[in-house]
Amino acid sequence: ISDLDADLIRQLLAPLHAADIADVLEQLSAGQQGILAELTPDIFSGDVLAEMDPGTREVVMDYLHPSHLAAAIAELDSDDATEVVEELNAVRRAAVLAEISDINREAVESSLAFDDETAGRLMQREFVAAPDFWTIGHAIDHMRESADDLPDKFHDLFVVDTGFRPVGEIPVCRLLSAQRDVHLTDIMEPPRILVKPETDQEEVAYLFQKYHLVSAPVVDSAGRLTGMLTVEDMVDVIQDENKEDMLALAGVNEADLADTVLRSVRSRAPWLLVNLFTAILASGVIALFEGALERIVALAVLMPIVASMGGNAGTQSLAVAVRAIAERDLTAANSMRVIWRELATGTINGVIFAALISTVTLLWFQDWEIAAVIGIAMIVNLSLAGLSGILIPLGLVRAGADPAVASSVFVTTVTDVVGFLAFLGLATIVLL
Amino acid sequence: ISDLDADLIRQLLAPLHAADIADVLEQLSAGQQGILAELTPDIFSGDVLAEMDPGTREVVMDYLHPSHLAAAIAELDSDDATEVVEELNAVRRAAVLAEISDINREAVESSLAFDDETAGRLMQREFVAAPDFWTIGHAIDHMRESADDLPDKFHDLFVVDTGFRPVGEIPVCRLLSAQRDVHLTDIMEPPRILVKPETDQEEVAYLFQKYHLVSAPVVDSAGRLTGMLTVEDMVDVIQDENKEDMLALAGVNEADLADTVLRSVRSRAPWLLVNLFTAILASGVIALFEGALERIVALAVLMPIVASMGGNAGTQSLAVAVRAIAERDLTAANSMRVIWRELATGTINGVIFAALISTVTLLWFQDWEIAAVIGIAMIVNLSLAGLSGILIPLGLVRAGADPAVASSVFVTTVTDVVGFLAFLGLATIVLL
Repeated sequence: ISDLDADLIRQLLAPLHAADIADVLEQLSAGQQGILAELTPDIFSGDVLAEMDPGTREVVMDYLHPSHLAAAIAELDSDDATEVVEELNAVRRAAVLAEISDINREAVESSLAFDDETAGRLMQREFVAAPDFWTIGHAIDHMRESADDLPDKFHDLFVVDTGFRPVGEIPVCRLLSAQRDVHLTDIMEPPRILVKPETDQEEVAYLFQKYHLVSAPVVDSAGRLTGMLTVEDMVDVIQDENKEDMLALAGVNEADLADTVLRSVRSRAPWLLVNLFTAILASGVIALFEGALERIVALAVLMPIVASMGGNAGTQSLAVAVRAIAERDLTAANSMRVIWRELATGTINGVIFAALISTVTLLWFQDWEIAAVIGIAMIVNLSLAGLSGILIPLGLVRAGADPAVASSVFVTTVTDVVGFLAFLGLATIVLL
Repeated sequence: ISDLDADLIRQLLAPLHAADIADVLEQLSAGQQGILAELTPDIFSGDVLAEMDPGTREVVMDYLHPSHLAAAIAELDSDDATEVVEELNAVRRAAVLAEISDINREAVESSLAFDDETAGRLMQREFVAAPDFWTIGHAIDHMRESADDLPDKFHDLFVVDTGFRPVGEIPVCRLLSAQRDVHLTDIMEPPRILVKPETDQEEVAYLFQKYHLVSAPVVDSAGRLTGMLTVEDMVDVIQDENKEDMLALAGVNEADLADTVLRSVRSRAPWLLVNLFTAILASGVIALFEGALERIVALAVLMPIVASMGGNAGTQSLAVAVRAIAERDLTAANSMRVIWRELATGTINGVIFAALISTVTLLWFQDWEIAAVIGIAMIVNLSLAGLSGILIPLGLVRAGADPAVASSVFVTTVTDVVGFLAFLGLATIVLL
């Protein structure tokens, strides 16, 4: 890549959307990204930086000069600017912020004052508001006059009272179709939600989805309009939160394709460590039955099947429960019914697979006692798997923990221990 | 609930948004939903039906009269109407469609002609288009005159040529801020994407997310504008597709909290069946080493640990890979690097956990040979777990299959079989 001419690179990237340029740059190695940052810093525009995934952005920004970064950030709406700036370390962040205008710096700094993953961090300071005594004609004339100061895109006009508190919102499409002499208050609707800056982004995304919102006002503690959230940002939040849940269920803390091996190890090892302890615990249960093991090889051979089936059945219940909790479908009102449903589903699947594995065992080892033992153990373990798959996430929610993160390891511990205990315990009683 | 007065129910629900009414109704049992459908059919308005989850909607619509359903559906935009109608069986669907106006029926029927989960099924027929020779003033005047015919909400004005082919799009907020005498062609941008009706909804949702779109035109085979997709619909699609991926990874075909036990069993048993076969396969591997097992109980006790750790490590790689594929981050260009990363991550975690389990084994059984065997087996299995966690989903994609659905069972089979084979095979060589 270093052989290529800078102009040629610019020509190749020119027709592309910023998101596509970011995609191309993400595919390069860190070394190649560094060469490009020196050769053609201008392709790393504000839009392109905002589109990159955070891992790549962090690497790339190390190669760019603070004054270039300041110019790139100044192009952006305050929410995107904040997203870019937050990846910089304290020293470089100060250097960059020193070079941008006071008004932009203030917006970015006050957004950064809010916690990560909150509405305050995500909101943009650019929005369109009109006083509640205006007509539609007033509002449209005002927008035409101040066209340069308007945000890049907006979907709702917020109507505010004299205290700058939002009292209504009007979709811009409705402004277009109404007559000029109509008062804003006649066609506005009360704001569906008023978001506080400290609200968790997942909560806000849920409300956007539920009420099909395209934008929502953010208000400060005095109820004054201070920012706006848009559905375009919420789409990213929904995708991120889903990704987090799914990775958590598989025991990965966070992951990005741009991660190095070292980062990947750090993000996955903790859950493997927990799994190691639970696997040893399960082995401890097997060790209790050394007598049975020495005498019957068949038991040792069949042993992992019950635990493995329980682990899978438990994870199935768990996945359903975690999703239902995320979508606010699982509530106190219907939890008893869902718990019963999971228990019944687990038991019925237990009976089905008990019949299957007992038949296989009978054909394989010609021993109906072992066949009966493995069948009963299967029913017991799959019933408890279903039950723990729903009760454990519900319990974690009640304890204030995130069910997606910790449930998986608890559930598989239950199914491993119960699986070995039921199978070998029954075997000891029946066979020995 | 049957003791309550119909008026009281109406009063209670009146101040709520349709999405909230749907939430309340979803919490009721099927019997209670039936009573309400007879007592107060009017609360099941078109909006409320459209907000319900499909399982509840199917139950509720069975209790409602076709003429009520027809009236409810007539209120809706064509995309929501289609979503409601598709839940009806053929007989009732015909009865309902017979009672709605020709123009609505035709829209719903042509949407239903497209496959489920395609753009054609999701699009709405109501959109706003203007010829390319109009000025902004023309467009605004036209919208004011035909305000009643406009869709409930729209975010972009589509500009079409004389063949009704979209040649540009203008966000409505830009119409408001521009001067009346400006030509549409001067401020329009070429459409970012032109969606074909047969395109998969997941593909479209990805493009909405990538380019931060709020609406997109759908064109027929001749390139004529036939419908519009909006970001509000895409938010639901993103959520649904994420749910599907996550449940698939846990071996659940589809799930809904409103499902009955029987449906839950049907949706989960197939993957448990596959798991049973793979668990038996793994047991078959153990059975190959009966000689080793009879002589050393310690091996039997430790046996499941290597397989369990491999299963978890493989699932971690898999979750990362499935997400990366869904977000189009994993491509031919970077796949070699990612494969290497997964192999290295697996191997490093293997070394870490080999050291740990070897120490534990040494303390527990005072046998350094077994400690060495389990350590080496752990490294081998976690390396292969990382590798199979990425290669199996990539292979499935190349074969045209959905990696989220089938990968999990293949990966755990590899880790189970390699886990037992490496551990017991090494034990046979070293110890016996």
